[in-house]
Amino acid sequence: MKRLTSFERRELVDAAIGRRRFDLLIKNIQLVNVFSGEIYPAEIGLCNGYIAHVEKIRNGNSLEAGAEKTYDGMGRYAVPGFIDSHVHIESSMVTPYNFAKIVIPKGTTTVVTDPHEIANVMGTEGVEYMIEAGRDVPMYQYVLSPTCVPSVPGLEEAGAVFGKEEVERIIGMERVLGVAEVMDYYGVINHSKRMREILDLAVEKDCFIQGHFFSDSDRELSAYLCAGPKTNHEFITGEDAKRALRAGMVVDARESSFSKNVRFIVEEIKGLHSPKNFTLCTDDREPKEIITKGHVNDCLRIAIKSGLNRIDAIRAATMNTASLYGLKRLGAIGPGYVANINLIDDLEGINVESVFFEGSLVAENDELLMEIEPKEFPLEKINSVYLNDFSVDRLRIRAPIEEGRVKVRVIKYQDSETLVTEAALEEVAVRNGYVTLEDREGLNFIAVFNRHKVSNNCAVGIVGNFCLSHGAVAGTVSHDCHNLCMVYTNLKDAVQAVEEVKRIGGGIVFSSGKVLMAIALPVAGLMSRHEADELIPDIDRMNEVLREAGIEFSNPVMRLATAALPVIPSIKITDLGLVDVGSQRLVDLFDG
Amino acid sequence: MKRLTSFERRELVDAAIGRRRFDLLIKNIQLVNVFSGEIYPAEIGLCNGYIAHVEKIRNGNSLEAGAEKTYDGMGRYAVPGFIDSHVHIESSMVTPYNFAKIVIPKGTTTVVTDPHEIANVMGTEGVEYMIEAGRDVPMYQYVLSPTCVPSVPGLEEAGAVFGKEEVERIIGMERVLGVAEVMDYYGVINHSKRMREILDLAVEKDCFIQGHFFSDSDRELSAYLCAGPKTNHEFITGEDAKRALRAGMVVDARESSFSKNVRFIVEEIKGLHSPKNFTLCTDDREPKEIITKGHVNDCLRIAIKSGLNRIDAIRAATMNTASLYGLKRLGAIGPGYVANINLIDDLEGINVESVFFEGSLVAENDELLMEIEPKEFPLEKINSVYLNDFSVDRLRIRAPIEEGRVKVRVIKYQDSETLVTEAALEEVAVRNGYVTLEDREGLNFIAVFNRHKVSNNCAVGIVGNFCLSHGAVAGTVSHDCHNLCMVYTNLKDAVQAVEEVKRIGGGIVFSSGKVLMAIALPVAGLMSRHEADELIPDIDRMNEVLREAGIEFSNPVMRLATAALPVIPSIKITDLGLVDVGSQRLVDLFDG
Repeated sequence: MKRLTSFERRELVDAAIGRRRFDLLIKNIQLVNVFSGEIYPAEIGLCNGYIAHVEKIRNGNSLEAGAEKTYDGMGRYAVPGFIDSHVHIESSMVTPYNFAKIVIPKGTTTVVTDPHEIANVMGTEGVEYMIEAGRDVPMYQYVLSPTCVPSVPGLEEAGAVFGKEEVERIIGMERVLGVAEVMDYYGVINHSKRMREILDLAVEKDCFIQGHFFSDSDRELSAYLCAGPKTNHEFITGEDAKRALRAGMVVDARESSFSKNVRFIVEEIKGLHSPKNFTLCTDDREPKEIITKGHVNDCLRIAIKSGLNRIDAIRAATMNTASLYGLKRLGAIGPGYVANINLIDDLEGINVESVFFEGSLVAENDELLMEIEPKEFPLEKINSVYLNDFSVDRLRIRAPIEEGRVKVRVIKYQDSETLVTEAALEEVAVRNGYVTLEDREGLNFIAVFNRHKVSNNCAVGIVGNFCLSHGAVAGTVSHDCHNLCMVYTNLKDAVQAVEEVKRIGGGIVFSSGKVLMAIALPVAGLMSRHEADELIPDIDRMNEVLREAGIEFSNPVMRLATAALPVIPSIKITDLGLVDVGSQRLVDLFDG
Repeated sequence: MKRLTSFERRELVDAAIGRRRFDLLIKNIQLVNVFSGEIYPAEIGLCNGYIAHVEKIRNGNSLEAGAEKTYDGMGRYAVPGFIDSHVHIESSMVTPYNFAKIVIPKGTTTVVTDPHEIANVMGTEGVEYMIEAGRDVPMYQYVLSPTCVPSVPGLEEAGAVFGKEEVERIIGMERVLGVAEVMDYYGVINHSKRMREILDLAVEKDCFIQGHFFSDSDRELSAYLCAGPKTNHEFITGEDAKRALRAGMVVDARESSFSKNVRFIVEEIKGLHSPKNFTLCTDDREPKEIITKGHVNDCLRIAIKSGLNRIDAIRAATMNTASLYGLKRLGAIGPGYVANINLIDDLEGINVESVFFEGSLVAENDELLMEIEPKEFPLEKINSVYLNDFSVDRLRIRAPIEEGRVKVRVIKYQDSETLVTEAALEEVAVRNGYVTLEDREGLNFIAVFNRHKVSNNCAVGIVGNFCLSHGAVAGTVSHDCHNLCMVYTNLKDAVQAVEEVKRIGGGIVFSSGKVLMAIALPVAGLMSRHEADELIPDIDRMNEVLREAGIEFSNPVMRLATAALPVIPSIKITDLGLVDVGSQRLVDLFDG
């Protein structure tokens, strides 16, 4: 956050009192006062990037004469710049400075990020890169230290392992506010060494601890809170959220590309008396969704549409989050606050028409007005796809018999619209000792290769209702370890896809006969070097190609990206094998 | 605040989840949930002084079997321990450990104190004493560093002068949360060196800055907020408070022995949508008022009676204050919070019947159950009344003529019930070169002697409507410099009163022919060595004696204590002379 020198603060005081002119006066606005909960006509006088004075208009008089410049708000609503309380920038598939370019016009002037995607690939160097790459942009990108790298030890292997030392090192870095989503709740409430040491550190340093909690047990919820984490953004039902709120947990209502939770949470809690512990987050949002639907403004729109009192909703997107993270001068429009201000058309559509950051107009009508200089970092040039031990043989499933049929555990998607799977026992044919799926429509091979320097793990399984009719699709965006995950119908296309992924330094590739489509994500295998508007057509094209290849899911890329995520029920595959999500155990592919 | 070791925190987690028994279960209560704003039947399980789990009772089932001990709440309401957001313990005229004895049974388990009374007498050593003397009591006494010692430089002299160095030293001490009421608002908005340096320090250290603001100018309010202070507890009207709230200031509604503000503030702001920036404080409360009316519970009672939503009111007395000061584990009843809990009879009377501090029952039915060990500190034995240059001659007013009548500026109380004065020009007789009041009923002499080591200043003036009919009353409790302030009808009694004050090491003395009544306040001339219940009869007796001596004001002792306070309008007297409060200038006693 912009800090004023003593001299600048005195200038701010002088502007407030009228001894010097405002740098800028934003006039003709309806102020949404998050302190008092009122909305009234006002003018906002700025100085040195801060708000010096807010004048309630009583008799039509303007302070215009006391300002160097004036911006006419045209009667629109002025609200504080929006704050995203939890986001993985990597999920936007663009770099932090390119992320800034797409979220600022949506009114997001502050984000609290968890760079745990890149941390799983590149460790603390990855986190350092995100911090560096988010500097000098006209928004605040705060960081929390990832705590669960990998998310569930023993069930998958990532490119790094975080313990107390790594977290401590990151906590000491610039713009780091605390520790990020403590996902290993089982480790937390059962005192695993890793979680104990990290939480002890966070408690000792008195830093913010972000939660991530799933259980529906009240006692486990209490235990988790007693251990230190404050928040949660993983709710299955509104009742879960209400229960959490009652226990003092901060309910961080998420509206990501994967999970839409705001509506059901709001519908459950909107009757409560102005709950304070309520914030909004985007978690993982794809670039197209940001550009077409919006960012925090979209969460806010849905919260209001779902019936939340609009003042409570705006507080959730601004001051509540600022207060949660101790960002004392953010999240409100008042004297002494940083001049991050959005002008919006109305309080239903939440269309952001003007965005001020540190007192400067940085976006208008969905256009960024400020140049963000192109940057380059050495890390962006590292090819992070290590597949030293890759061979076609590793793509095949060796059966316990030479010929005949065997029962296998299939990862079966429940339907074409969900990310949730169930374990199904199916009979498949075995030929020359290897499983073949040639006679089984609806089943595909799925493989996860550890693609990091540290390991050559690989596991192959069978997926149902993924519905790939031909070819192979491979990707390095694969939550949370970001190993190489591939679904394929034949070995030739599979090899080709893997080789192309390796060649382009990570990304998503579809191959059928030849490489039909490739999205290069060379920054850690997660992010493009290009801006979102160049990337989005590629993603669209890839989804189209994949739909043509039979995948009915509305967003085939996302289905691939979550196939190896062993926290979404009920069965997933990682580089270590099949995972039963409920029991958090590895299970055999073959039954009996 | 009690901090748990890693081991104790794991025990807390275990108790939450049910792997070990609760130390205590408080059952059969109506939980006032400040998070959700709901009230419902519940049980609270405690471990290691913290709350491990709160069970919402659904079907009458109890967790009793899982607890070592059970306390039956008898159906009463459980609310978080109350937090006083701003208090000068010295005004209770008892030492910090004796203060604890009277406020704990009222449900106050945390106070944020400003030891600026003793700081004016004894400097940083006085502050250190307050910190030490407030240790090891079953409540939390946090401290803010006084910033305005003396309150208005140039208008009065105290026993110490605080600059950046003194404040910095105190900020580094245990239990110090930031800097206390920045009273010199004129210095703040006009960049006085003293205020600039202290605020620069506080901003640089990112510590809490408490405000104290009087002006009705919107622009001055903005300027004051831009300079750093966050709060205010000085409101003349409800409209002032609403204006402050709109500007983002925290409205700290005060109900002290001097100023009753809660009702008019609540009446103005109660229509707002759940304002967050609202807290309650007692500021200065006399011991009798604490014992008879209450403490924070009294502020809360009045807030609810005045129409504030009861959840908002309870939040103001608990979680809002905790959140303001960053006391993360205080102010709510939820897993992971310190087990400071009050059981109250109903939500109107707010009679506190049981008080738990760190999980232990410390008071019940207005009785402290826990022994607070008697303490002694070397500072308590220092006689702080230095009057090296006192002589009867200094009590007389030398007139500019030898005989006849002169016009003088009289400090005239508006009526018998106010602390507010106005300047009145009156003619008085002069005999042998000295003013005499023998023929002027309703006028008394008033003198202020600097009683600190550093100075021999003294000023004598004339006060109207104080109504002392005979004798002299002198006291060392005299806000904020705590010089010796005396009102007298004749020199003989005046000398006797001063000598007695000196002999007893400070306090309040009434003399008429002989010393008729004396209250010894030997600790810095401000506090008794005795407990409140021994002190209160003395104060009552003193007030009675003074009323018999003609002073109609309901609390004569308080009128004396504020006669030298140059921030209450319109004219006051300090050791440097008559002060015109409006212009903050010294003025002449004689007109023309």
